[in-house]
Amino acid sequence: MKILALDSSGLVASVAVVEDETLIGEYSVNYKKTHSQTLLPMLDTLAAMIDLDLHTIDAIAVAEGPGSFTGLRIGSATAKGLGFALNKPLIGIPTVDGLAYQLAGSGNLVCPIMDARRQQTYTGVYRFRSQSEMEVLVEQCAIGIDELVDKLNEIGEAVTFLGDGVPVFRSFLEENLKVDYDFAAAHQSRQSAGAVASLAMQYARDGKMVDAADFRPVYLRLSQAERERLEAEKRKEAENGAEES
Amino acid sequence: MKILALDSSGLVASVAVVEDETLIGEYSVNYKKTHSQTLLPMLDTLAAMIDLDLHTIDAIAVAEGPGSFTGLRIGSATAKGLGFALNKPLIGIPTVDGLAYQLAGSGNLVCPIMDARRQQTYTGVYRFRSQSEMEVLVEQCAIGIDELVDKLNEIGEAVTFLGDGVPVFRSFLEENLKVDYDFAAAHQSRQSAGAVASLAMQYARDGKMVDAADFRPVYLRLSQAERERLEAEKRKEAENGAEES
Repeated sequence: MKILALDSSGLVASVAVVEDETLIGEYSVNYKKTHSQTLLPMLDTLAAMIDLDLHTIDAIAVAEGPGSFTGLRIGSATAKGLGFALNKPLIGIPTVDGLAYQLAGSGNLVCPIMDARRQQTYTGVYRFRSQSEMEVLVEQCAIGIDELVDKLNEIGEAVTFLGDGVPVFRSFLEENLKVDYDFAAAHQSRQSAGAVASLAMQYARDGKMVDAADFRPVYLRLSQAERERLEAEKRKEAENGAEES
Repeated sequence: MKILALDSSGLVASVAVVEDETLIGEYSVNYKKTHSQTLLPMLDTLAAMIDLDLHTIDAIAVAEGPGSFTGLRIGSATAKGLGFALNKPLIGIPTVDGLAYQLAGSGNLVCPIMDARRQQTYTGVYRFRSQSEMEVLVEQCAIGIDELVDKLNEIGEAVTFLGDGVPVFRSFLEENLKVDYDFAAAHQSRQSAGAVASLAMQYARDGKMVDAADFRPVYLRLSQAERERLEAEKRKEAENGAEES
């Protein structure tokens, strides 16, 4: 089983190829260039270096969101284009899950925090039952950093943070956490297509693949907005119903 | 503090740039090409992608050995050439320590195993006191896989293995270990210049840097051979002394 993985959900652009239990290649940059300037050229460079025939790939994994809207659209469009051209299935990996998987085997709980602006974060809470088996305690979500701290204090276990939210929220965490905490080292602390590919290998085994045509990025905040609108509409309907009865 | 790191100690060729707590870029391939075909072109590609002016680097970190003799010579020569041309210090990272640092924050003991042929392995045993603070329980060494298993059974704690020795020694480990064990996921399981750079940041803070001219790779087995020769010579001297007295 050979998987090509892409992650352009945040500032990092990353491509990787994993075959079974071996990472054949990974190329990641965390730099101010836009992903439209980096992602495909990086894939091209990596493919040439490892003599990769794209037709030998079994699936294309992509960090499906949440994250930067533009980044997700570029990642999604690239993965769908490749999947469509090569007639290969796509595997959507929740961005925060992929980020957490960077710390596979961690002795602490793992809590990725992505800066979603205005004191909001894309986050989730994970525990490793073994080196590679990850349990989701809090599913990826868009919440306030204060709400995250409340959840972590409630769970009451030592936790390691990673992600581009660390420099943004570090002092808030240090002031408000009542549990032991730590921060990931530099090489583990941002998105990596290698981690996405590794996790995608489990998804592939479980048959969690979709046709390129059916793949959709997960914006999360947009979904939330839609949910809120739906709820507002329901309330209105209920109020109307109450008035009518 | 900006560190350029190279690792060509094994089958993997890897280059990375870390600035303070952020991995700016990493490019790694695990492919049959020789490192003389990959390492410098990869550095060149990465440097161009992140607009890296090599003169802005503070130090050059390199996996100093043990490992493939040719790989170590290429890594060492490249690092020394860069250090000499740019007038920057070198930081030698023990290969096995760098490999262990891939699993920074692990809940288990960490035991990298590199295949050194004839049932021998370059290995070491490590414990993480915190996410980034690594304690060396068994310093990197070249020993038989049976001797390693004895050591691990004696220590008696759960352990996670990684490295290119895993596919080679897996069944031996499974048959002979009396402690819980696990294996690293694909994205964590081989050399990475990102981990070398991350660890080198600690070395730099502690002032553990050398002039390019003074840097030497650590072959370990050659050193062992030399040590054995020395011991043999000492024995001979002692015997001669005994005969004379």
